[in-house]
Amino acid sequence: MTQTSQRHGGPIRLTASSTTGLRPAKAGEITGGLWADRRRINREVSIPGGWNRLHQAGNFHNLELAAGRSTGDYVNDLPFLDSDVYKWLEAVGWAFADPALSSALADRLRQQLGETERLLRDAQQPDGYLDSHFQVRFPGERFVQLQWGHELYCAGHLIQAAVALHRTTGDLDLLEVARRVADLVVDTFGTEPGKVDGVCGHPEIETALVELYRETGAESYLERARYFVDRRGHGLLGEGRFGRHYWQDHVPVRDAPSVEGHAVRQLYLLAGVADVYMETGDASLLHPLERLWAEMVTSKTYLTGGIGAHHSDEAFGDPYELPNERSYCETCAAIASIMFSWRMLMITGESKYADLMERTLYNGFLAGLSLDGQRYIYANPLQVREGHMARGTDGDYQRVEWFHCACCPPNVMRTLASLQHYVLLSSEARAVLHQYMAGRYAASVAGGEVWMEVTTDYPWDDTVTIRITRAPAGRWELALRVPHWAQQPTLSVNGTAVDSGPTDGWWVVGREWNDGDEVVLVLPLEPRFTVADQRLDAARGAVAVEYGPLVYCLEAVDNPGHRLDDLTVDTAVAPEVVSVDGPLGGVAIIRTAGRVRPRAGASWWPYRPAGEPAGDEPGESVPLTGVPYYTWGNREPGAMRIWVPTA
Amino acid sequence: MTQTSQRHGGPIRLTASSTTGLRPAKAGEITGGLWADRRRINREVSIPGGWNRLHQAGNFHNLELAAGRSTGDYVNDLPFLDSDVYKWLEAVGWAFADPALSSALADRLRQQLGETERLLRDAQQPDGYLDSHFQVRFPGERFVQLQWGHELYCAGHLIQAAVALHRTTGDLDLLEVARRVADLVVDTFGTEPGKVDGVCGHPEIETALVELYRETGAESYLERARYFVDRRGHGLLGEGRFGRHYWQDHVPVRDAPSVEGHAVRQLYLLAGVADVYMETGDASLLHPLERLWAEMVTSKTYLTGGIGAHHSDEAFGDPYELPNERSYCETCAAIASIMFSWRMLMITGESKYADLMERTLYNGFLAGLSLDGQRYIYANPLQVREGHMARGTDGDYQRVEWFHCACCPPNVMRTLASLQHYVLLSSEARAVLHQYMAGRYAASVAGGEVWMEVTTDYPWDDTVTIRITRAPAGRWELALRVPHWAQQPTLSVNGTAVDSGPTDGWWVVGREWNDGDEVVLVLPLEPRFTVADQRLDAARGAVAVEYGPLVYCLEAVDNPGHRLDDLTVDTAVAPEVVSVDGPLGGVAIIRTAGRVRPRAGASWWPYRPAGEPAGDEPGESVPLTGVPYYTWGNREPGAMRIWVPTA
Repeated sequence: MTQTSQRHGGPIRLTASSTTGLRPAKAGEITGGLWADRRRINREVSIPGGWNRLHQAGNFHNLELAAGRSTGDYVNDLPFLDSDVYKWLEAVGWAFADPALSSALADRLRQQLGETERLLRDAQQPDGYLDSHFQVRFPGERFVQLQWGHELYCAGHLIQAAVALHRTTGDLDLLEVARRVADLVVDTFGTEPGKVDGVCGHPEIETALVELYRETGAESYLERARYFVDRRGHGLLGEGRFGRHYWQDHVPVRDAPSVEGHAVRQLYLLAGVADVYMETGDASLLHPLERLWAEMVTSKTYLTGGIGAHHSDEAFGDPYELPNERSYCETCAAIASIMFSWRMLMITGESKYADLMERTLYNGFLAGLSLDGQRYIYANPLQVREGHMARGTDGDYQRVEWFHCACCPPNVMRTLASLQHYVLLSSEARAVLHQYMAGRYAASVAGGEVWMEVTTDYPWDDTVTIRITRAPAGRWELALRVPHWAQQPTLSVNGTAVDSGPTDGWWVVGREWNDGDEVVLVLPLEPRFTVADQRLDAARGAVAVEYGPLVYCLEAVDNPGHRLDDLTVDTAVAPEVVSVDGPLGGVAIIRTAGRVRPRAGASWWPYRPAGEPAGDEPGESVPLTGVPYYTWGNREPGAMRIWVPTA
Repeated sequence: MTQTSQRHGGPIRLTASSTTGLRPAKAGEITGGLWADRRRINREVSIPGGWNRLHQAGNFHNLELAAGRSTGDYVNDLPFLDSDVYKWLEAVGWAFADPALSSALADRLRQQLGETERLLRDAQQPDGYLDSHFQVRFPGERFVQLQWGHELYCAGHLIQAAVALHRTTGDLDLLEVARRVADLVVDTFGTEPGKVDGVCGHPEIETALVELYRETGAESYLERARYFVDRRGHGLLGEGRFGRHYWQDHVPVRDAPSVEGHAVRQLYLLAGVADVYMETGDASLLHPLERLWAEMVTSKTYLTGGIGAHHSDEAFGDPYELPNERSYCETCAAIASIMFSWRMLMITGESKYADLMERTLYNGFLAGLSLDGQRYIYANPLQVREGHMARGTDGDYQRVEWFHCACCPPNVMRTLASLQHYVLLSSEARAVLHQYMAGRYAASVAGGEVWMEVTTDYPWDDTVTIRITRAPAGRWELALRVPHWAQQPTLSVNGTAVDSGPTDGWWVVGREWNDGDEVVLVLPLEPRFTVADQRLDAARGAVAVEYGPLVYCLEAVDNPGHRLDDLTVDTAVAPEVVSVDGPLGGVAIIRTAGRVRPRAGASWWPYRPAGEPAGDEPGESVPLTGVPYYTWGNREPGAMRIWVPTA
């Protein structure tokens, strides 16, 4: 911890001239609880497994072809296999900053990193070009297949990996490779005569170039990022199979009224736009960012924080078009949403952004990874019908070890590996603790560095204890987020209750702090029934169970003897936590009162006149057992649902 | 009429040994009302327009390439463009039997038919092979790309076109071309050594070969159709992108518990299986057909009769997975459903099959064509959200003049052109009138031919008058279908009420009939609210309005000043017909009492604790105006919905 405490070792190292309300923490370490466990699995299982998977899937083979080290054909019909390697490299980069990384594993990762860097150097062409798909399949053809080629997308992920490694280890080798790629991009693209005036079919280069600017100080990267933001939305990419919305080229971002098209593309773009705003202060970008976030969250976000309703084009649907069985909710889109919200939180300091981050982290994101860290899911449904998994009609709904299109697994790895940075922020006046994960964190306020130790078993326990381990002199504020779901929170400082209460989602305590001061925040946890806006058709007449930041679901394995389709919930009886042990290991299980609707009679037609008896009323009482959504699908395959009709 | 009365001029000419409960009518002519109007548009606008569209879209160009008459590349990346020509030819074939076809148009169609026949003869290879896609793009490569090649699918549509032309005109030219293709298929496929043991990725050849057997008496065609049915479901096609279900190769049809995969493929297959059953009497096929139809209708069919919930693979979803905004409901799938149900009606004589046919004809099918007959829709949603059409995010939901994949338009044409055959059936004992369309129809019973004239303005009027214009001697029965929605129907014969009432959906009157006997069936029409099985999430807490066989919808254009998303319906007030005129020309408009839910407040999150006020309750009263679903999208584009939440 001490080694990395003087440099910011996570995503987004703001420059001195950045325009934000809050700045990232100086240091962080997650030491216990749910997330420490998830990070341990990520570190010990997922990331090491990634090396093997990337070899088995041909990603390294393709780069070896580009390096002239091997012969054969490019493996896979997708052009962006390099990006999976880069995202894995980024995860490795962040992992090096984890004090819990064993030296044996660190050695192994260092060796794999070295091998990969040599491979990339060998594959890179003299002028800096590096993209195995085009080098192998279309030698000499560059930056002309902008719609589907993903060259700038891959370049962006290479840059992010290099930035991560440089931030955590000072590694310059990959940074050199990435800068040569970035310089080629800078030289190639632009509105000047002789340059390519275009944007990539998949945003990603925007945020990457800003990060590279932050790391190197070279303004040309920031300028080119701004160029890509400005030029997008002018139809440079043409129509394509799914229309201009798909690749975010239908309208300039400043004019966009709503999030549209491919969800990951939309949110990678908005993260990049936020980055450009932070570093340029271009005020014309701020209102669109706020407007688009609000439009997304109010009408196009699932209860889990998942986004993207359509399977066919992995896209946002219309407002309130959020069907449960066909919620696409790509894991990568959840990650992109967290990236976007985190930037908006930094820019504005508004708690709602942290609220959505939390919801997405605990639900839409975390469900993307199996509990054992070995299997991933691409689409995250809110409902799986009886028999679906057994029929195997849609592999999307099963966690598997790797994908043909394997964007999600290394994306999960890099997110978990850098998660400690998504906990604390600060301004001159205050330290802002916006996520509750047991650990040690440091941030700068005007008077110096604040260090704190957070002790909690949240989300299983309602109490978060913050001990100030180093307090700079003078008055500063500690701001603690009170999630929008929290009822009657309490706060004490050194045992004395604070009565002020939260304002706009923040409970702020300003004083002169001393080392050892202890703040206790209690966010009472009671299981609750949640309903949706009536415009969400699939949730009408139904409730979900939530518990703190967790969304719950029914799984067939916990509710044997009945089809989930036949169950209703009785909201007159309060749900209760019945166990904190169980097959899923320490998670809270929640029991509610329900009814089993008898199967309808012999009618061949499932519609009937209103007022005519359904033949399927009340039915016998049955207890319903719910588990946290993120744990679903880790036992025997079967039906699952979040929204349950009321009796 | 008289010219065609001695031969059966429609789809399915059963053989003497066919195993069915009912047989097709001998003759039919639709002379008035909704369907006569739709058929006039089809005859005068759609079919003549098809010739031009097929030329513009490159379908004829591709055949000219195959015939060596032209140079260039195969147009379109889809391999089955020939099939669009064949379905159009089939429509032309049925149109020749329409007494209302003007002689000028008949001459034009005859000339176009002649040209096309010459083209096909020129393109056909010496051994009978004919498929422009493979001849042009993969010369010499045959029957190896069975997954996606669609060779047998195209061959099937060629055969159906040839059969249609032969049945209506005696044309032998196309039949000769089709028989040479069919003979090649018969010689090529089979389990014998040296033959190709395989099935086509898209069923269609099965029903076509049975029809060719019926037309020619050559048993080899029936045998090969049976072979294709028997061999499917054994994994001969491999996995493919969407899994084996997609191309109906996951399980042998005799073992299938449920309809699965691509909806059109599934139902073309089942129509073919029904054909094989009818001609072979193979009892092992009957129960699977009944079981699969029931499974489909009970849990996978929309109120409109539309089927296929998924966009991504055009497939059936899980049981009760029927989201409204993303109802795929391909027009071709509705047609395939009608084909399947009609065969099941013939086989079993059960009224539910005719009920579903009617529902699908008036709703899921008819919506596929614009009122002016010039535009087609591919996917038929039950709900279109505000702003969807304007954003143009999904061209699927707009009727357009033609498609890149233009399977639906000529499929609509051939269905409307042969519709008069889908009205009357018969057995030795009875004539079975199962659809109510004004016209003249003839069918054979034991004593001879029954001729009848049907007078009605159904579905706008509740009275159907059937005059027996030729009654064979002796006792025979007239069976009239009483739709499952009809309350308190009445029947009279020559002015005398018949009290017996319907049984199992049929009102049967047995007697010795005389020429001129008049039967009056009244199916009282009252607009009604319909609810769905509670397992249909998107319809929970909502009602639809139906009127006779018609499903109604709200369109934004008729309900100005409010977003449809904000409207609820008050079911305490009965819906009423307010006009039979209006902008849509003679259709019944239905008014219901509704409320406008104020937009929710400023919350950024669309979910809230159960019991907490929504801030969007009751709201002001507003009348809601509904139109028949099949007419939607013919005026200014806007929101539309069938299921409306209750207040």
